[in-house]
Amino acid sequence: MTRIIVGIMGPGDGASAHDCDRAAQLAGLVAAEGWILLTGGRSAGVMEAASAAATRAGGLTIGILPGTDWTQASSAVAVAILTGVGEARDNINVLSSRVIFVCGISAGTAAEVALACKAGRPVIFVSAARETIDFFRSLDARFETATSPHEAMTIARQLLAPAP
Amino acid sequence: MTRIIVGIMGPGDGASAHDCDRAAQLAGLVAAEGWILLTGGRSAGVMEAASAAATRAGGLTIGILPGTDWTQASSAVAVAILTGVGEARDNINVLSSRVIFVCGISAGTAAEVALACKAGRPVIFVSAARETIDFFRSLDARFETATSPHEAMTIARQLLAPAP
Amino acid sequence: MTRIIVGIMGPGDGASAHDCDRAAQLAGLVAAEGWILLTGGRSAGVMEAASAAATRAGGLTIGILPGTDWTQASSAVAVAILTGVGEARDNINVLSSRVIFVCGISAGTAAEVALACKAGRPVIFVSAARETIDFFRSLDARFETATSPHEAMTIARQLLAPAP
Amino acid sequence: MTRIIVGIMGPGDGASAHDCDRAAQLAGLVAAEGWILLTGGRSAGVMEAASAAATRAGGLTIGILPGTDWTQASSAVAVAILTGVGEARDNINVLSSRVIFVCGISAGTAAEVALACKAGRPVIFVSAARETIDFFRSLDARFETATSPHEAMTIARQLLAPAP
Repeated sequence: MTRIIVGIMGPGDGASAHDCDRAAQLAGLVAAEGWILLTGGRSAGVMEAASAAATRAGGLTIGILPGTDWTQASSAVAVAILTGVGEARDNINVLSSRVIFVCGISAGTAAEVALACKAGRPVIFVSAARETIDFFRSLDARFETATSPHEAMTIARQLLAPAP
Repeated sequence: MTRIIVGIMGPGDGASAHDCDRAAQLAGLVAAEGWILLTGGRSAGVMEAASAAATRAGGLTIGILPGTDWTQASSAVAVAILTGVGEARDNINVLSSRVIFVCGISAGTAAEVALACKAGRPVIFVSAARETIDFFRSLDARFETATSPHEAMTIARQLLAPAP
Repeated sequence: MTRIIVGIMGPGDGASAHDCDRAAQLAGLVAAEGWILLTGGRSAGVMEAASAAATRAGGLTIGILPGTDWTQASSAVAVAILTGVGEARDNINVLSSRVIFVCGISAGTAAEVALACKAGRPVIFVSAARETIDFFRSLDARFETATSPHEAMTIARQLLAPAP
Repeated sequence: MTRIIVGIMGPGDGASAHDCDRAAQLAGLVAAEGWILLTGGRSAGVMEAASAAATRAGGLTIGILPGTDWTQASSAVAVAILTGVGEARDNINVLSSRVIFVCGISAGTAAEVALACKAGRPVIFVSAARETIDFFRSLDARFETATSPHEAMTIARQLLAPAP
């Protein structure tokens, strides 16, 4: 039975403590829900915070890595996929996720959100900055916004609920 | 001798007449400069307008296509590269371009700009919307802005000038 | 803790019953060993036989799919990675696998073996045809050969054993 | 008007003088025919020999490179496409070529031939080794064989001739 994968995206090396906190909280909820967590897999920022928290909560973690070498993977990632396609892996991240949670923003995260919009994958911003919201609204992109990890999970559950 | 390739990026099916006009003007200038034009290669919006204008001006045009089939390529593209990697081709577009000119915005274009920022390829926005500028500024991304195709070309020539 | 992933590769639609039998036996042994099984993820041939057998044996199964759509994934795949890169996903298959077991041959499998040789990932042929062995030998490629799934597992355990 | 691109594939660093000679002769004929030459773009082996010969004959040369850096490109490549997808670029090489000429064999070349068979792109082996022919025949792959660059060109012209 194919299991549900959801992505948590956000800055790597430049992540704020606040970005990482939200990502960790959310990852704990994702694991508790029985969903698989997908991140960019490196040992930095939101990827690391989310993978570590999901692991502590007993969840399964997948990392989609840009390179060809296992040393690149965070030790909090149980399943390391080495793509070797560099930043083109952003598109694999979004295609493989039923829902994409966004905690903080960076150039890489912006690419993922834009690709998710293009691919029709649902995006949920958690406490996003005004400039981010205004920009994606100007693209006529469809996305959800939440002010907390719990609210984000409520939205995700609705999006993933089977049609009645 | 490896020739200079520059990209013109912008919306496909949702491009405005204004986006297409700027892209066409710019493409004519690119061709006159002896540079090769790179686009996403489809027969739509900014890609088509730029490729057609560069061809009319005697320039060489490359299209980097998402699919595996030549029918997808605009007839204004002389060199059609069929990547078969879908939207991951956005990263190939930016990596292969010495400078990326941006005429208008869409989800696909936003992905290209974000990937260019990540890859360190120079981006020049031509008459970009305020929301676009504010957003990429909030990422601490480096980019240039121009109010006309001529100004954009002046900036590009400076960026590509050999160090003295 | 990053877990060990091994790949089982072989023909899809054109697989023989013998190819599928060996793949299923091997997948059962892989699951019993606690290793994660990686395949091309579609519901056909060696991919399907291996994923189904590993699932029955309580193992975790990953499918690396060429397309962008979950319907493409075998229901025996627990973790479906939608790459959207078409056959370029062959390189992701081999990069992500610590060892690649080969049961039967097809054009797609040949591409995977060749890419594994290039990437330095160990290949173990299980009862390969003479033409296959002769060809890869003519490339000076390094690979192992086994005459049964049990022998293939013995070789894999040696390859993956920590240096003393 | 989209121009015809044909690929010349063969070993890089391990190419024999004979492989390079055939590739260079063929590339001269390709350029004289008005076709665009596509190679893997690096400054090594068959790629370099073919690109240099096509350039001398006044042809246009494209290199599809694995990395993200222009220094990787042969100076005999006029159009350097930086894919950043590593060896997954092999699939882009074959998808973008109307015909693939094969001069010599290596793991990388074998991957390209296998991917070409899968994608339905015509392959023409020029003086291939017996092991190579026997292997691809065992896959029920369709391909052509030629004993000289001139014969290979004759076959390619027939394959690319418009239906009457």
